[in-house]
Amino acid sequence: MKVAVLGTGMVGQSLADRLAGQGHDVTVGTRDVEATMARTAAGSMGNPPMVEWLRDHPRVTLATFATATAASELIVNATSGDASVAVLEAAGRENLAGKVLLDFANPLDYSQGFPPSLFVSNTDSLAEQIQAAFPEARVVKSLNTMNALLMVDPRQLADADHTVFVSGNDVEAKQVVTGLLRSFGHTDVIDLGDLSTARGTESLLPVWVRLFGVLGMPTFQFKIVR
Amino acid sequence: MKVAVLGTGMVGQSLADRLAGQGHDVTVGTRDVEATMARTAAGSMGNPPMVEWLRDHPRVTLATFATATAASELIVNATSGDASVAVLEAAGRENLAGKVLLDFANPLDYSQGFPPSLFVSNTDSLAEQIQAAFPEARVVKSLNTMNALLMVDPRQLADADHTVFVSGNDVEAKQVVTGLLRSFGHTDVIDLGDLSTARGTESLLPVWVRLFGVLGMPTFQFKIVR
Repeated sequence: MKVAVLGTGMVGQSLADRLAGQGHDVTVGTRDVEATMARTAAGSMGNPPMVEWLRDHPRVTLATFATATAASELIVNATSGDASVAVLEAAGRENLAGKVLLDFANPLDYSQGFPPSLFVSNTDSLAEQIQAAFPEARVVKSLNTMNALLMVDPRQLADADHTVFVSGNDVEAKQVVTGLLRSFGHTDVIDLGDLSTARGTESLLPVWVRLFGVLGMPTFQFKIVR
Repeated sequence: MKVAVLGTGMVGQSLADRLAGQGHDVTVGTRDVEATMARTAAGSMGNPPMVEWLRDHPRVTLATFATATAASELIVNATSGDASVAVLEAAGRENLAGKVLLDFANPLDYSQGFPPSLFVSNTDSLAEQIQAAFPEARVVKSLNTMNALLMVDPRQLADADHTVFVSGNDVEAKQVVTGLLRSFGHTDVIDLGDLSTARGTESLLPVWVRLFGVLGMPTFQFKIVR
């Protein structure tokens, strides 16, 4: 599958690495290719600069948001929540039309420090805001409730005995994403329903950040025991 | 222990039943004892009217909110979230002072139908509003993330292999509640920290109500796999 991964941070790199390793044709999207290639400092999560990361991933291409999305069937939003709508605008709505858009950004607001609050919640969600801004995209919310390592390699924890949620208005798009999740190793996929159910999964973040504080490591996961 | 359970609904009855069965000295609090004893219809969850329930629980007393709390060391808030502060006002702040107040009410707003939204969330919580209204009470938030059956008898599901959270500003009050949880059969108790962490656990409700819809039964639970 031709996949555009929007975002060059730790999460974008994890997804691009995993997808390329599975044989997908991956293009990483960024705002300014030259500027991204000129950066030599490590990322905010200690991840390598893209110029170095691309040397280790020769099959992955770096391109602008627009070029990356235009060529792809599946678009992965790996940007921070507060940048997501602007990045998708930069990608161009014509490049999103009809495409499956896997969104796992969270609407975290760090303006008051740690712990973050949510800049949209309760009666709306970031996923719904993205869908409203790009009505022709087929938005699926998933994977936003766990650390990047567990997103792409859930077997790293308890042999994947934990849960991933899927929300979206397009049944076929949810099937594409569910297939991808299973290919990553996810065993318990719960389809919560339409995209308004992303209000629920984005609202898991406030307890997630507190658990991160208490447990002292990000490799934990929600499991729905039933 | 002398315990006041405030609220005569299904959740109040479940807690009172369990606590009395453990040998605690339980008084159920209600606004108007005569009016409560006069009701002969089943409760909203199909639970028996109190007049019938008390016949089956001869060791439990029914009293006004004030009488119930005045006599008790531990107070359990089993009222609906939108009534909680008014009920505690009726109990009388002098009767709450210095007492452990176990709060598992959720700030559910059903004014727009199902699914409910939250009438307080994100940068505040019902637990914090209760603590602010009654600064001398020792509020502990817990048990609000599961069905009443699993609150009091967690072994009914997966041999209690799931998680309960505790939030509160008073370390000793959290120890009292944690002891109670373990006596009920809870095996995985996570102390999230101060009462502001109740923002996180109250925010689990939006996904809880969606899971209830999808799974078709309320006897499921969150487990934090780590």
